[in-house]
Amino acid sequence: MPKQKTSFREIRYNEKRQKILENAAKLFARKGYEKATLEEIAAKLKLTKGSLYHYIKSKEEMLFQIQMQALDQANEALERVLRSGLDPVEKLREAIKSHVQIVTREHVIGTLRQQELLLPRKWREKVVAERDRFERAFQSIILEGVEAGVFERKNWRITALAALGALNWIPRWYSPRGELSAEEIGEAMADFILRGFAGGVSSLTT
Amino acid sequence: MPKQKTSFREIRYNEKRQKILENAAKLFARKGYEKATLEEIAAKLKLTKGSLYHYIKSKEEMLFQIQMQALDQANEALERVLRSGLDPVEKLREAIKSHVQIVTREHVIGTLRQQELLLPRKWREKVVAERDRFERAFQSIILEGVEAGVFERKNWRITALAALGALNWIPRWYSPRGELSAEEIGEAMADFILRGFAGGVSSLTT
Repeated sequence: MPKQKTSFREIRYNEKRQKILENAAKLFARKGYEKATLEEIAAKLKLTKGSLYHYIKSKEEMLFQIQMQALDQANEALERVLRSGLDPVEKLREAIKSHVQIVTREHVIGTLRQQELLLPRKWREKVVAERDRFERAFQSIILEGVEAGVFERKNWRITALAALGALNWIPRWYSPRGELSAEEIGEAMADFILRGFAGGVSSLTT
Repeated sequence: MPKQKTSFREIRYNEKRQKILENAAKLFARKGYEKATLEEIAAKLKLTKGSLYHYIKSKEEMLFQIQMQALDQANEALERVLRSGLDPVEKLREAIKSHVQIVTREHVIGTLRQQELLLPRKWREKVVAERDRFERAFQSIILEGVEAGVFERKNWRITALAALGALNWIPRWYSPRGELSAEEIGEAMADFILRGFAGGVSSLTT
């Protein structure tokens, strides 16, 4: 068989698989993972359950793949920022802005967070490991700013978790029909979080 | 039947029901709501499934009651702050600190957020309405500060959502065995969020 043909078929296969995952993500987010069925996902794509099985074996595998793809994107974007050579302040700003781009584009997937409890242990551990990798990289930017003396040192770990919470919460309220663009939300988040790390709360207390 | 006796029986009944809910919350948080069974909850409390049914009819009702109790507490605490007569800065600080007290005490329940999709519509709508009530009250404090000129007006709605995200995320990382007490976490959160509302990010940009 000529190599070209196989490869074309592979591309088609992967595209189809990706489409299945995207549809599954939307259905999970709308109905809840537990209530969604493989039959519904197949029907939406005009597939039989048998031909769906050719691409992906179970609902759990779908949830796993969806979560891993989103985490991969987030980690890749963050690693680009880490390699950027920017100073810590600009690095944190870029990390926040690029992450907001991803979580708003993938806000459907974002609503599936916490569902990893439903995965079998081998997959759950992979999801948690990828998430930990993201959080460690994010914290490393903050620590860099703390060490450089530009970010408040006091309780910096809690502050880092607060910042991650602000970002991780976005999929819960973001709507593509909202007033602000993803860029504007990214800027607003970066402003808020950078102010939060800057110190100087004393000027506000009465 | 003497009234005293009935009332004593009611207290016992309510205590037992509360204990069932607390055990269910822990099991849901640990295993995931879907994987936990009524049989397990009953067994943990040395009850038969039949006597469990005397207190509560379904897993869905447990999830509903657990979420509503936590939201009630959060709303009550926030309303006390709203009535306090403090200025906006101190009001926001108190709101954050008292909310952190609740979410750290109830961190098990906090991990059950997002699960309301699993509830029947009539209950789901109540949970969402209580949550909206909390978020509106929280935003009203921020708006008060914006109007008073002490909080940054630009993108204040996004900033309010960022602050709520930081708080709502706490149950995901909080551990009662962690280094900092709930009080210290509350202070750190309040410092971070108040700095975030204070403006003055320009001093940080390079």
